Amino acid sequence: MSYIKQMFETHPVNPSSDHATVIECITACYSCTEACNACADACLGEKDVAQMVDCIRDCTDCGDICFATARIMSRFTRTDFKLAGAQLRACIQACESCGAMCEKHGAKMEHCRVCAEACRRCAKACEALLAQ
Amino acid sequence: MSYIKQMFETHPVNPSSDHATVIECITACYSCTEACNACADACLGEKDVAQMVDCIRDCTDCGDICFATARIMSRFTRTDFKLAGAQLRACIQACESCGAMCEKHGAKMEHCRVCAEACRRCAKACEALLAQ
Amino acid sequence: MSYIKQMFETHPVNPSSDHATVIECITACYSCTEACNACADACLGEKDVAQMVDCIRDCTDCGDICFATARIMSRFTRTDFKLAGAQLRACIQACESCGAMCEKHGAKMEHCRVCAEACRRCAKACEALLAQ
Amino acid sequence: MSYIKQMFETHPVNPSSDHATVIECITACYSCTEACNACADACLGEKDVAQMVDCIRDCTDCGDICFATARIMSRFTRTDFKLAGAQLRACIQACESCGAMCEKHGAKMEHCRVCAEACRRCAKACEALLAQ
Repeated sequence: MSYIKQMFETHPVNPSSDHATVIECITACYSCTEACNACADACLGEKDVAQMVDCIRDCTDCGDICFATARIMSRFTRTDFKLAGAQLRACIQACESCGAMCEKHGAKMEHCRVCAEACRRCAKACEALLAQ
Repeated sequence: MSYIKQMFETHPVNPSSDHATVIECITACYSCTEACNACADACLGEKDVAQMVDCIRDCTDCGDICFATARIMSRFTRTDFKLAGAQLRACIQACESCGAMCEKHGAKMEHCRVCAEACRRCAKACEALLAQ
Repeated sequence: MSYIKQMFETHPVNPSSDHATVIECITACYSCTEACNACADACLGEKDVAQMVDCIRDCTDCGDICFATARIMSRFTRTDFKLAGAQLRACIQACESCGAMCEKHGAKMEHCRVCAEACRRCAKACEALLAQ
Repeated sequence: MSYIKQMFETHPVNPSSDHATVIECITACYSCTEACNACADACLGEKDVAQMVDCIRDCTDCGDICFATARIMSRFTRTDFKLAGAQLRACIQACESCGAMCEKHGAKMEHCRVCAEACRRCAKACEALLAQ
């Protein structure tokens, strides 16, 4: 379903970093955007919505940051490493906050469990790219 | 990789429309966002960039519209059908314009061929949902 | 505060439509994005948040659509009129739905009154551009 | 034109930080989003577009990051200070890179001069908020 691998392989500028790591980072960022947006809405649909306010806030922030990160990382023409690094750090922070919050609700709410999984995977993928 | 199916199945509000159709629409919209953003940048990296200006414009517009459509469709709490319909129509139009443009460049540029495929799939998925 | 007027006047491609109308449309779309995003969060902060769920949903959808519309309209290089028209229609629909919902809450909640005003202005500006 | 001040004053949760500083930060982030998106397109419309590729890349990245920052900062319900700080740092980096690039082109291209001004103002506003 993901087109990033194909896009990467056909991009006229051959990016210098390891392909698998950056592809996994972009894929995980898009998947986490998707999960966070859907989880924020699922939380909003819960009967005891008042209890979910903090979680909605974290999911919305995390979705915004993951999307910006996905877009920036999928532009291979010229990478500003200082900028990419700063955005990856913000993304890791967002995924850790949101992942911990969703983990807490995950026993009762399946959508939070799924979202926590997406956040953990995204944080890990961003850390792997940042380490390069 | 996509979390939408799991999110849909665990959402507290059970949406009324056919599950498979809406899941495919959201997945196709996110995938097309991904392809369009990456293709716009790949076009920007082509040697003869002046020839790619219209394609960059179409990819950027299409990526923006697909993303807005994906987000709106993945909120199941309460669907405003008039709004959803109007946004799906805009999305089909964007995918048709961008798909046709990328198709034209597809013989020479692989990334445009991949993007055209993502656009066609997205237009088809939006049309299927609109038909319900 | 808005840079769109200056951007428009210094853009190398001179767009064909009436300048004042398109500038007001872009400005109103960005302002409505801003108001909707802030209103969704203000609704989330209300004591009786369960009563605000529909309003949060409408504000979030409207913010997403207004932002996509603002971006598309502020690209003057080449306008796809069919696409622009479809997106303007989706935006008008979003502003009408969200404006009506916020209007309803406006007597009690000031942030909803402000948001309804932003929606009305945006719908009007999109209609004026669509009429050209 | 900006609704943030009114939104801030009518938000049910009274944020702890200095009002003027956060309002200026959000306003500057939205204005910079607007300027960067329009400048990327104006660069794309320049006759010698090949010379503008790096500038388009910087403007697109900066627009994405400023928008994510604006959205996060305008959610007053509960601020995750570690996350806010990391995103502000990414935003400052983006505005500095893009501002320097646009500054370079500013003598010849008015839209780049305007965009550089928006970037400088945004970097300054983010730094002021980060210092709190």
